[in-house]
Amino acid sequence: MIDLYTWGTPNGQKASIMLEESGLSYTVHPINITKGEQRTPEYLQINPNGKIPAIVDREVGDGLAVFESGAILIYVAEKSGRLLAPSGPERAQTLCWVFWQVGGLGPMIGQWGHFARAASEKIPYAINRYFEESLRLLGVLDKHLEGREYLTAHYSIADIANYPWVAGGFKFIGSQHPEIPSRFCNLQPWLDRVGQRPTVIAGMSIPNV
Amino acid sequence: MIDLYTWGTPNGQKASIMLEESGLSYTVHPINITKGEQRTPEYLQINPNGKIPAIVDREVGDGLAVFESGAILIYVAEKSGRLLAPSGPERAQTLCWVFWQVGGLGPMIGQWGHFARAASEKIPYAINRYFEESLRLLGVLDKHLEGREYLTAHYSIADIANYPWVAGGFKFIGSQHPEIPSRFCNLQPWLDRVGQRPTVIAGMSIPNV
Repeated sequence: MIDLYTWGTPNGQKASIMLEESGLSYTVHPINITKGEQRTPEYLQINPNGKIPAIVDREVGDGLAVFESGAILIYVAEKSGRLLAPSGPERAQTLCWVFWQVGGLGPMIGQWGHFARAASEKIPYAINRYFEESLRLLGVLDKHLEGREYLTAHYSIADIANYPWVAGGFKFIGSQHPEIPSRFCNLQPWLDRVGQRPTVIAGMSIPNV
Repeated sequence: MIDLYTWGTPNGQKASIMLEESGLSYTVHPINITKGEQRTPEYLQINPNGKIPAIVDREVGDGLAVFESGAILIYVAEKSGRLLAPSGPERAQTLCWVFWQVGGLGPMIGQWGHFARAASEKIPYAINRYFEESLRLLGVLDKHLEGREYLTAHYSIADIANYPWVAGGFKFIGSQHPEIPSRFCNLQPWLDRVGQRPTVIAGMSIPNV
């Protein structure tokens, strides 16, 4: 049994989609980040960084805590034997696109969202910086998907890592610049392909609160 | 034989330290990012994202390209059988701290550096945002190192991922706020412990141009 501590953000959705895909049994514990529940002493025992998502695998020792959505993807993939090739080129390529999302697309769209929506000051330099970098990154992904169904030869944790960020990014971009999403002619078909999976539909709506 | 395409940045140093640790033979190809060499058509064939570092493993097929420093760490660790436990809790914990660096410490220190040094406008809100978040993250690492020699039970790719960023971050913080680094009483001994390894000393000075 795995305990999942999460909230309805793209990083949380990565973990819940993967658990849906894995076939492993798990229990959802909502951590309401709008109320600061990710910073309670109890939760910091699970993730010292005070962020969602995290999992605790109750089948390992006294419970093995795994935090950071990328580490959760690999952990669940290796435990279940699904969506990450055990060796060879496809494994390496899958991990390239997982890390590309974790170190690039996620932080850059995240910072864009902060400056465009949440920041107490409107700072054109910062809004533009992250908007431009988000578009560049979406362009890299779009170009890579030319002639491909998935980011690597088969649907994998690379698609799961990127899906919630591209879906969320497109929604936000579309609300401000309706003409932009259609420029990325390979991203929408890929979003549709990934997004119609029952596991993805289920994972995207967790936690259901 | 592995070809390493790199420049002397923290992400580049992660790759060169790991190759030094691995015992695998490799050739360094400097990619001068101050001249835009990371965006040539030839290099984009290796890394479509146009960033350093990347490697090409010439022993796999026609050459297997691996980009993103985190993916390179895992690839070289698994190829060489070094510095990443093949299974179990230590493997999971190592990957937590690798992803924590890739998704958090790296981007946040990187953005702080941009706004504090490179940006064409001085924007106090943005400088302060990334300075505060960098300090918070360094505090998380410092607290985790209390009573520990390394980030996990043994020296691993988690230490390699974090070392160049903490070393570089400390240098930059110290130049602006000389009183701050000593607040993190566990980080400096860890920097000393990791930084005295001959492999780390060698890796930190690549490419030697």
